[in-house]
Amino acid sequence: MMSTWLLPESLADVLPAEARRIEELRRELLDLYRAYGFELVAPPLVEYLDSLLSDKGSDLALRTCKLVDQLSGRTLGLRADITPQIARIDAHLLNREGVTRLCYCGSVLHARPAGLLSDRELLQIGAELFGHAGVEADIEIIQLALESVQRAGVVGARLDLNHLGIVRALIDSDLALADVADEVIELLSTKDVPGMRQLGGRLPDLRPETLQALTVLPSLYGGVEVLAEASRVLPALPRIQQAMADLQTLIQAMPEYEFSIDLADAGSGYGYHSGVMFSIYAQGWHDALVKGGRYDGIGRSFGRERPATGFSLDLRKLSSGLPPARLAKAIRAPWGTDPALTEALRGLRGSGEIVVQSLPGETHDLDEFTVDRELVFVDGAWRVRAIN
Amino acid sequence: MMSTWLLPESLADVLPAEARRIEELRRELLDLYRAYGFELVAPPLVEYLDSLLSDKGSDLALRTCKLVDQLSGRTLGLRADITPQIARIDAHLLNREGVTRLCYCGSVLHARPAGLLSDRELLQIGAELFGHAGVEADIEIIQLALESVQRAGVVGARLDLNHLGIVRALIDSDLALADVADEVIELLSTKDVPGMRQLGGRLPDLRPETLQALTVLPSLYGGVEVLAEASRVLPALPRIQQAMADLQTLIQAMPEYEFSIDLADAGSGYGYHSGVMFSIYAQGWHDALVKGGRYDGIGRSFGRERPATGFSLDLRKLSSGLPPARLAKAIRAPWGTDPALTEALRGLRGSGEIVVQSLPGETHDLDEFTVDRELVFVDGAWRVRAIN
Repeated sequence: MMSTWLLPESLADVLPAEARRIEELRRELLDLYRAYGFELVAPPLVEYLDSLLSDKGSDLALRTCKLVDQLSGRTLGLRADITPQIARIDAHLLNREGVTRLCYCGSVLHARPAGLLSDRELLQIGAELFGHAGVEADIEIIQLALESVQRAGVVGARLDLNHLGIVRALIDSDLALADVADEVIELLSTKDVPGMRQLGGRLPDLRPETLQALTVLPSLYGGVEVLAEASRVLPALPRIQQAMADLQTLIQAMPEYEFSIDLADAGSGYGYHSGVMFSIYAQGWHDALVKGGRYDGIGRSFGRERPATGFSLDLRKLSSGLPPARLAKAIRAPWGTDPALTEALRGLRGSGEIVVQSLPGETHDLDEFTVDRELVFVDGAWRVRAIN
Repeated sequence: MMSTWLLPESLADVLPAEARRIEELRRELLDLYRAYGFELVAPPLVEYLDSLLSDKGSDLALRTCKLVDQLSGRTLGLRADITPQIARIDAHLLNREGVTRLCYCGSVLHARPAGLLSDRELLQIGAELFGHAGVEADIEIIQLALESVQRAGVVGARLDLNHLGIVRALIDSDLALADVADEVIELLSTKDVPGMRQLGGRLPDLRPETLQALTVLPSLYGGVEVLAEASRVLPALPRIQQAMADLQTLIQAMPEYEFSIDLADAGSGYGYHSGVMFSIYAQGWHDALVKGGRYDGIGRSFGRERPATGFSLDLRKLSSGLPPARLAKAIRAPWGTDPALTEALRGLRGSGEIVVQSLPGETHDLDEFTVDRELVFVDGAWRVRAIN
């Protein structure tokens, strides 16, 4: 349904039936977030680059298109992610003490496609919960993320779970790792155990039990039984025990869903995320459909650090993997200014019908609707009848 | 409801209650366009600058932010108007012979604010009808534009009407005007009759009857009675007569609305528009709320000229002039994983209720909702009761 004719690479028009389906998904999900009490906000398309790139260490800077503000002469960024904007709104505009639930839906642009098959323009929708550090907030967010894909009609969704508190606790527990944290994360994400041993060899002050934990972490993935194994083999640091307890609580709160655990995969989320972290996968989509988790540190650059957890997904990507939408049925009507016809049109449209009035000489050619009935003047009145 | 803290000038976050109202207007209007058989499309945020600026003569180039495409090295434009994109989709992607009705809603950005009080980011919504040159298409578009503001709750909307066929016919009828068309338009728009006489003095070949028509045109504004006066004083060129007949048909087709006529005001629309042209004004908005009209030439730069008429408006501006929205009522519920509670929550949310679950230790602070009821466990069941 997408075409790239005359358009830059990895950018596309969304054409009739597909655009309507995306609109319907948008409404369905925004209504879902509203039912949970999430308030809608809409940050601007562009901002000062400094505000957009609050998370200094990330690859967001590379993904963000830059332009010059004609009013201030300063550099603006065309947002590549809406989440930092929502954190800014929570920190400074609303400036509330208690829990704040916010949701949003808007376009973002990536300077380069994130993957071989990715588009550069996304319609990002998401929900964020600020001001609560407990696992209860993570549970609400994960429930909402799972319900989002379910409502969209995705079947067999699978949730991958991790807790960055574990990796962070390990790194913070050993001063020898202070300068190589990024390297450790990279080695963990690629499950490169030999590489981790080599790194250990380069660090004479690294404690053997830390290296032992880092080399065992990549094997801690699979079903929920991984948690018992992890409790046995990982050092009994208080933050690791807390992380384990949180994951247990979370899994028990959602007995109807299946979880996968991968305690090593910090992905690209280390600089950003801080606690429970998750991705939702499903057949039909080559990579994660939803990404989310806790990112308590994000408000720091806005001068107001608040606990935060949330998720987001790309509605265009979500729609692209779903079966084709069914076309809506429409009624054909003749053109005219006869008040009885006008009245009939108004009544039909008011009751939710789609009525396409044929202009003089018009031929129809519709992708989004199928015309199955017509409005005709019979026996002194305007009536709808089926078209054979 | 808007704040500009830390944001570039003339850009703002849209905060809870306002964002929700804009979302509701968006749905209301997109549903209206759908009921008329307009198919939804979504062109990209950025395109090659050449495609976006199909209308060479306009001020669109100044309003469009530029950025460099990292994939092609070419210049991209961040769209300042969606209409040319919709014309491109009609001309090349859909490539239909018959009538095509398209609608859209998306963000656009202006490099500089259009007016002193204008925002640089607009949420543009609109409907375009391609492939029909008759006044019937203009009637459908104007009806839809008027119904749009009515549905939004705007009272006392006023429609200003013009037909650029008149000015175009006058200019085309006299070779002496070939090189000064822009100047003529400018003088007409500012109703500068002395300036028009001076211009006439500089053009020895200008026919006296053309100058006479150009100096009388600025006085042809007011109620629909202006049309009779215009027929009397303007030269009887076939295109002028056709324009007069079209305006008459149009006004008669919508007896329930009040029209103002201004036959001189081509505004900034001369390079773009070609026939019937209109604006809708209402109390509460300092300039036009809706702008629209015929722009048959727009497809030319895409190699496929098609008759086209349509309109657009900014949903943020529309919302900003409306009375404050009423807040939705919400239910407060305690946190818990008890299956009976989960069931009660699901039932309430499924029936359209907003239920905010209090996380442990949570305090509420909501702008978009007012909490007037709570979910409590009484006599062995979860029940909703009013909060005093």
